[in-house]
Amino acid sequence: MIRISLDVMGGDFGPEVVLPGAARALERHPDIRFLLFGDQAICAPILERYPKLKAASSFEATEIAIAMDEKPSQALRRGRGKSSMWQAIDAVNRGEADVVVSAGNTGALMAMAVFCLRTMSGIQRPAIAAIWPTLKGESIVLDVGATIGADARQLVDFALMGGAMARALFELERPTLGLLNVGVEEIKGQEEVKEAGRLIREASFEGIDYSGFVEGDDIGKGTVDVVVTEGFSGNIALKAAEGTARQIASYLRAAMSRTLMAKIGYLLAKSAFDRLREKMDPQKVNGGVFLGLNGIVIKSHGGADAEGFAAAIDVGHDMVRNGLKNKIQADLAKYRAVQTPEAATGDAAARGEI
Amino acid sequence: MIRISLDVMGGDFGPEVVLPGAARALERHPDIRFLLFGDQAICAPILERYPKLKAASSFEATEIAIAMDEKPSQALRRGRGKSSMWQAIDAVNRGEADVVVSAGNTGALMAMAVFCLRTMSGIQRPAIAAIWPTLKGESIVLDVGATIGADARQLVDFALMGGAMARALFELERPTLGLLNVGVEEIKGQEEVKEAGRLIREASFEGIDYSGFVEGDDIGKGTVDVVVTEGFSGNIALKAAEGTARQIASYLRAAMSRTLMAKIGYLLAKSAFDRLREKMDPQKVNGGVFLGLNGIVIKSHGGADAEGFAAAIDVGHDMVRNGLKNKIQADLAKYRAVQTPEAATGDAAARGEI
Repeated sequence: MIRISLDVMGGDFGPEVVLPGAARALERHPDIRFLLFGDQAICAPILERYPKLKAASSFEATEIAIAMDEKPSQALRRGRGKSSMWQAIDAVNRGEADVVVSAGNTGALMAMAVFCLRTMSGIQRPAIAAIWPTLKGESIVLDVGATIGADARQLVDFALMGGAMARALFELERPTLGLLNVGVEEIKGQEEVKEAGRLIREASFEGIDYSGFVEGDDIGKGTVDVVVTEGFSGNIALKAAEGTARQIASYLRAAMSRTLMAKIGYLLAKSAFDRLREKMDPQKVNGGVFLGLNGIVIKSHGGADAEGFAAAIDVGHDMVRNGLKNKIQADLAKYRAVQTPEAATGDAAARGEI
Repeated sequence: MIRISLDVMGGDFGPEVVLPGAARALERHPDIRFLLFGDQAICAPILERYPKLKAASSFEATEIAIAMDEKPSQALRRGRGKSSMWQAIDAVNRGEADVVVSAGNTGALMAMAVFCLRTMSGIQRPAIAAIWPTLKGESIVLDVGATIGADARQLVDFALMGGAMARALFELERPTLGLLNVGVEEIKGQEEVKEAGRLIREASFEGIDYSGFVEGDDIGKGTVDVVVTEGFSGNIALKAAEGTARQIASYLRAAMSRTLMAKIGYLLAKSAFDRLREKMDPQKVNGGVFLGLNGIVIKSHGGADAEGFAAAIDVGHDMVRNGLKNKIQADLAKYRAVQTPEAATGDAAARGEI
């Protein structure tokens, strides 16, 4: 049995998407048991429409729903203890759930998750890992926005966690990993990235096949299974790619409706276009994963539909089934054991600062 | 008359692309006079095929061609004074050309340009501005790789130069401008970006309509005419977007050749697809512009074809015709005049360091 807690009020559509999404995920994974947190008056009638889901769930009424545009600090002040988002996270903290899924406000979710679950021992800062569709399948890109300006040591932690996630999600033994950089010329690159590259090479992690630096266009090519970068550039890369995909989809729609011939051609090739749309649809690979906390948090796209939210639940299910948290902890323990005493001291000092 | 010097040996194909490209640009702009720098034995027979180009050009033989994979420091050591790249840049320095265009190695071109032309008085660091196709037309994005980790003051310089370039290239009176950031939540963003936002707002530049922060997906939407960021994230955004465009083109090709119906549909809609391909083709908006130097340098894509190289020449032609350099200098002078004495002192000190 895999226990998944849901922030039912999260996302642009709240229960209207979260509950149908949960019902779909349950059909695919009958081993799930849901812990639902939300507004009773709104959720109860919707839940009645999904008797199988109702039977596989516990429901706990919460008073507060965090708004999508609420500032993290305000969300924390107002929602701590009482909001559906907090309660869903706290179910993981209390050991009642194995993973939490929310389509709510990213900043608020991260703030509450850090506050409630705390960072994992040996990890300074959390990361958000995105699952990125590539020409070869899928890759993991982290961090896409949790830690702005990560230093070399934090980038190494991200590499370790990303490697563990790739082993859990793609069921690979030794995923390939690259550090995002701006080319191979000598004068280029951030100092942190160069230093992280040196540290990863020296550490020669058992579970990671380090490939060196990769560039922005390597992500979509699928050059490596895991791409590591700090949160500012990672977030910008993700959004620039999403923007480009939407831009091309819009060109394509315009081109296919311009002439009668194009319209007929479109109809004949419709199934091909449908398949293409599915490939380009961010919903299909929905689910950012918060790594580095004492518990797994899955962030679904706020605008996801029921199928998109179900995909985020699928990600959470796979992470638990394949023991992501244990994989990260085991890798960390191995890595720290071979580190020099100075590094271990620095580590403890850094932990003390948090 | 607009005088354009060309590094004929630059790019993946050298004279075989540069000379036909120049011939095309000349047809569109008969007011160009070219200064060609390259290997005489290779260039002379190709030039014979373009009599109009030959008549509108001077040719100077150079001994050294910079390789596409040469390190900037090595290129500078080996090619200073004697290479086609250096000579083409130096023609601008000597006042013989108004702008230089090269499809050569970006790192080497930047190193030589900085060494030969020096940064403009009042500008600490150069930037590379890309012309980015958007849903509304085109935007300027800078810096895409010249200055890794630009500080707030340098970001303000980039804003000023990007604004001047938008006025020169798009013939706008007051282009809109945004600073690239990772969302509007309070805890997010780099300190430098926040500080730059504050400085730009306070300066209330005459020629810039500052719109605040924008995110990665705003670039493709064309939310603003000018997007300012430091070189690391700018380069990664550019390459991530290019990678995504290629990825989708590849999906599209695969989808359209899967079934007979799709193939027939493709043939019927072929003219629409051709128009789409043109829109997605980076060649069509080819030409990164090096800003902040005492002279304008246009960098063409190394893999550009003749039409792509001609497009880079078009950009150079427009920049000179619309007085880009004077626009930047006038804006800088106005801005510095209203700055506090302390800032002006800091400025001079910074110049002394370079």
